Amino acid sequence: MYELGVVYRNIRRADGDVAARLGAFGSATVHEAMGRTGLMKPYMRPIYAGARASGTAVTVLLQPGDNWMLHVVAEQIRAGDIVVAAVTADCNDGYFGDLLATSFKARGALALVIDAGVRDVRVLTEMKFPVWSKAISAKGTVKATLGAVNIPVVCSGALVTPGDIIVADDDGVVVVPASLAQKTLETAATREANEGSEREKLAAGVLGLDMYNMREPLQKAGLKYID
Amino acid sequence: MYELGVVYRNIRRADGDVAARLGAFGSATVHEAMGRTGLMKPYMRPIYAGARASGTAVTVLLQPGDNWMLHVVAEQIRAGDIVVAAVTADCNDGYFGDLLATSFKARGALALVIDAGVRDVRVLTEMKFPVWSKAISAKGTVKATLGAVNIPVVCSGALVTPGDIIVADDDGVVVVPASLAQKTLETAATREANEGSEREKLAAGVLGLDMYNMREPLQKAGLKYID
Amino acid sequence: MYELGVVYRNIRRADGDVAARLGAFGSATVHEAMGRTGLMKPYMRPIYAGARASGTAVTVLLQPGDNWMLHVVAEQIRAGDIVVAAVTADCNDGYFGDLLATSFKARGALALVIDAGVRDVRVLTEMKFPVWSKAISAKGTVKATLGAVNIPVVCSGALVTPGDIIVADDDGVVVVPASLAQKTLETAATREANEGSEREKLAAGVLGLDMYNMREPLQKAGLKYID
Amino acid sequence: MYELGVVYRNIRRADGDVAARLGAFGSATVHEAMGRTGLMKPYMRPIYAGARASGTAVTVLLQPGDNWMLHVVAEQIRAGDIVVAAVTADCNDGYFGDLLATSFKARGALALVIDAGVRDVRVLTEMKFPVWSKAISAKGTVKATLGAVNIPVVCSGALVTPGDIIVADDDGVVVVPASLAQKTLETAATREANEGSEREKLAAGVLGLDMYNMREPLQKAGLKYID
Amino acid sequence: MYELGVVYRNIRRADGDVAARLGAFGSATVHEAMGRTGLMKPYMRPIYAGARASGTAVTVLLQPGDNWMLHVVAEQIRAGDIVVAAVTADCNDGYFGDLLATSFKARGALALVIDAGVRDVRVLTEMKFPVWSKAISAKGTVKATLGAVNIPVVCSGALVTPGDIIVADDDGVVVVPASLAQKTLETAATREANEGSEREKLAAGVLGLDMYNMREPLQKAGLKYID
Amino acid sequence: MYELGVVYRNIRRADGDVAARLGAFGSATVHEAMGRTGLMKPYMRPIYAGARASGTAVTVLLQPGDNWMLHVVAEQIRAGDIVVAAVTADCNDGYFGDLLATSFKARGALALVIDAGVRDVRVLTEMKFPVWSKAISAKGTVKATLGAVNIPVVCSGALVTPGDIIVADDDGVVVVPASLAQKTLETAATREANEGSEREKLAAGVLGLDMYNMREPLQKAGLKYID
Repeated sequence: MYELGVVYRNIRRADGDVAARLGAFGSATVHEAMGRTGLMKPYMRPIYAGARASGTAVTVLLQPGDNWMLHVVAEQIRAGDIVVAAVTADCNDGYFGDLLATSFKARGALALVIDAGVRDVRVLTEMKFPVWSKAISAKGTVKATLGAVNIPVVCSGALVTPGDIIVADDDGVVVVPASLAQKTLETAATREANEGSEREKLAAGVLGLDMYNMREPLQKAGLKYID
Repeated sequence: MYELGVVYRNIRRADGDVAARLGAFGSATVHEAMGRTGLMKPYMRPIYAGARASGTAVTVLLQPGDNWMLHVVAEQIRAGDIVVAAVTADCNDGYFGDLLATSFKARGALALVIDAGVRDVRVLTEMKFPVWSKAISAKGTVKATLGAVNIPVVCSGALVTPGDIIVADDDGVVVVPASLAQKTLETAATREANEGSEREKLAAGVLGLDMYNMREPLQKAGLKYID
Repeated sequence: MYELGVVYRNIRRADGDVAARLGAFGSATVHEAMGRTGLMKPYMRPIYAGARASGTAVTVLLQPGDNWMLHVVAEQIRAGDIVVAAVTADCNDGYFGDLLATSFKARGALALVIDAGVRDVRVLTEMKFPVWSKAISAKGTVKATLGAVNIPVVCSGALVTPGDIIVADDDGVVVVPASLAQKTLETAATREANEGSEREKLAAGVLGLDMYNMREPLQKAGLKYID
Repeated sequence: MYELGVVYRNIRRADGDVAARLGAFGSATVHEAMGRTGLMKPYMRPIYAGARASGTAVTVLLQPGDNWMLHVVAEQIRAGDIVVAAVTADCNDGYFGDLLATSFKARGALALVIDAGVRDVRVLTEMKFPVWSKAISAKGTVKATLGAVNIPVVCSGALVTPGDIIVADDDGVVVVPASLAQKTLETAATREANEGSEREKLAAGVLGLDMYNMREPLQKAGLKYID
Repeated sequence: MYELGVVYRNIRRADGDVAARLGAFGSATVHEAMGRTGLMKPYMRPIYAGARASGTAVTVLLQPGDNWMLHVVAEQIRAGDIVVAAVTADCNDGYFGDLLATSFKARGALALVIDAGVRDVRVLTEMKFPVWSKAISAKGTVKATLGAVNIPVVCSGALVTPGDIIVADDDGVVVVPASLAQKTLETAATREANEGSEREKLAAGVLGLDMYNMREPLQKAGLKYID
Repeated sequence: MYELGVVYRNIRRADGDVAARLGAFGSATVHEAMGRTGLMKPYMRPIYAGARASGTAVTVLLQPGDNWMLHVVAEQIRAGDIVVAAVTADCNDGYFGDLLATSFKARGALALVIDAGVRDVRVLTEMKFPVWSKAISAKGTVKATLGAVNIPVVCSGALVTPGDIIVADDDGVVVVPASLAQKTLETAATREANEGSEREKLAAGVLGLDMYNMREPLQKAGLKYID
């Protein structure tokens, strides 16, 4: 499925400003705005609580136990990018540590999303370089086999095309295709606008049952109250 | 096994004061006081370190990918309750977020224990609304199929009858049947009383081998020391 | 495979000073210095972020759901030791809590590494007694069956011989055989020395591709750039 | 939650004939007839393909790594019973082998359902003694700690009360409370009766879309066909 | 990421004859021929040993616990197709049983590949209708929420575009994009041709070390033999 | 922990006849005879039901996604050996298929035990070449990085020294150190001798409670019968 041994240098990035604004809504709202699709598997967790990032995806395909291509992708990073790393097989090795983070950060990367393991998490946390990963492991890797850079990849169950927008926080990682970014932003904004007044009402003790007019459909579905 | 499409409005809650006092002992002590039974599976984790809660259970049975009944259970919450949510199948979706938390809190709920996923964990953490869950996921849910409220449920391997006491902290979630609450409280108190002096002795370098008179039974069991 | 019912009182500990210096390098560097071997499985996690410890191993073999031997091993602890606990079967029970931690600490133990569960993690965190474990669980254990103390054990996939050096931090747990400690220290020191200047260059925007001379081998492997 | 150290000798068993007839429908049909509840977790698998059994439950609660109570429950077995074994903690040890199977069979047991491991599966298969378990393991167990016999237990996520009907086959294990057995039988029979003619139509190429009148609700839900 | 509520009726299927010939090579050979990419996760297992199938993909996206769209996709099946079913969240429910299999078979489907659970496996086995799934479960599903048919889906970690070739057997499930089918066939044929003579030599005791000329590169890599 | 890049050509193998006789007892009996130690994790499963093998271990340490050393170990195989393959990290790739099996068999190997994945399982089954593995996967591997041959390895949680006896069947894989082989054989024989008469009695309806004199210790432990 994957084209190996290639590096695509020119990708069409989604608008960085849209990425920033989507990030402000958070992954849960953006995921809803996309019809509840585009989410990576929930095993992807930030290495520190409160991590959040949004940006444009540069992608890299790695081989098991081999981080060679992370050095190749570093050169393709531009300010505002998030590196999205997939692996051709399940692997928990620590592909990425503080040296690569220093390099990525110097190139302008905002975060790493990797369907594998990372290490040096104490230093990464101190650097405030956010990473979402499947595992944490001190296990290092070799540099022997080619993967690819900036091809479409499946990462943690989600398809990521280079240039897509990534929104990541404590709740998970959502992928927004560049072509849907603007529309998703509008849907998210509308949704968020409603949530403000809803929150107030709920805080005042109003029930969702009433606010969302659920009593009738629940009754139709057959719900019975028993005293 | 489950009665579906029903909401029991009148349940007999255990004494709230007993719940509070059991909570002060913590889940490990309470679990010991119950003969090492009543514990949910250890995959149930608090969404933030240091979370702790104890209260009376209102229960809800959910369908996979469907959080409709969380709105129904909200109405049945009274001050001092903990909502215990079971699902009819394994599901990691994010059933619960900051809006429902606002509603639950307004109704007097102290916590949520859910054998599924939750989202908006940053806001839930800021609200100090403690949740014990199987997963964290931005994935939202639909509202289409009935479950039930305030029926006995199996949540994370433990049977929870409405009105039971729930004790939850960093170590896990324990269920104390209402009928055993008072006796468990007494056993826990006795146990805790002993622990104080034990801790002092151990801190002074006394060995458990001596303090608990283990040397003889170990020898009888055949333990040999080799120099 | 295991000799049961025995306690070896005299073990040859690696040099404590070497242990301390290896600990300063961290598990990732030490693991690299050992040719990327000696690491426990990545499911071993510290009970609190930022935990780190290094010391000499005293080992204990436990039976499922039975923590009797933890009291036996306590007597064998000397200042600077780390207790490494293996179990003869997979078990997530909470074998260890604040009382045993008080005892271990009084005897001079620096940490516990256990291929099972622990409890009282709030208190352990307050005590700053670091533990690496497979699980957290309020579930207590019995005291009925013999295991062994200070025999070689397989813990979380790694062979640990009594007296070996353990280096544990956020990235995981590495075992350094006593006989390789000095050499590993030297290799780690060399490695670390290089990393300082590398980090500076990477921070200045130099690419790993150039710094590590990767462009030629990548080209030979067939990597193609596409505009 | 559990009463320990007790053996209830008199339990009210559901009708054995009803159990046999429910078994003929299979676990999937019975599960549907119960409103899609009562199913154990799908990790419960038969030790050989094609295993199937239905009967009345005698229950046993075991301690981790300890099969003492399996000998106690043997005495309580009557012809037509299925032994349902829960454990107070997660454990994959091999609690049950060919000797116990010989004993269970001699007492009239039809099967074992155990939320743990078993061994001697080659002999069990030759004996045609069906077992549903979480694991297969040569690991033996001790006989040291009391559990209980014929108390209600939570086994693999399902509540089992002594005397309930168990229906187990390749698709899983369903629990039918004694009080619902007759009604479930009727619902299952109705369901099955319909399936015969449905199967014929589907085999002839009729679509479920038409047979179940789904086209209109799909259209209402907004489904669009694109050429 | 996904377009919901749509059914694409016209898809461009890869050549059925190429699919059949790729199937004869088996998933391992095809996977190698594709540069070791295109494989679904190894948790996908056939419901019976020896199952094998190859054909053209029609795809369906399902919602958690909801199999409505399987009835919709049935209408889109043509002779030689394999249905590939993805779910928007992790779910082990039994989405598919003998009635749907009867319908799929009548429409000409050769197999089902589903990233979820199935049931009625005994009957499916008797029907010789092969299924690759993540789980087996008697748990049924509702029909309430729209997904999509014949959109590109990520199934078990692999991207499947409608019309792609699926090769499935005991070793797993491989996806061959329609555009690469012919070339993959040629590569696989070459590979297979070599394997025949290699097998003969190996059977005669010739070592891979010699046959593949590995001794020199191993020596260069530093391998040392110790007597 | 591991010495890399080495092949030990001379190992001291345990007696092949003892291996054969231990194999006849099966893994469960041998495991008991060793005091319930020496068992690999229960995730190790045979690729076909009824597989069984016993022999002397030649060991190999592999790197993630890299099967180069399997060709190296092939040369070290002698008649009666079982190859035991460990990996330096968790990996489910298909390291081994029918070509390597042909080679191993030609060299006299009786089986493979591998803490990773294998492929071509249909052909391996037809060849009757038994394999115990963690996974089945069509995913192939590279040949780029050195491991080691005939060093002590930790495989699936058990320490295996070259020359040890391996006993593997449906119940799992047990390792018997060469030095304990004779004694284990005697203990197993005694144990098995008793089982014959026990089986007869149990088949006749005698209870383990009586045969093993458990009634008194159960009563002492506090067991109560309730009518």
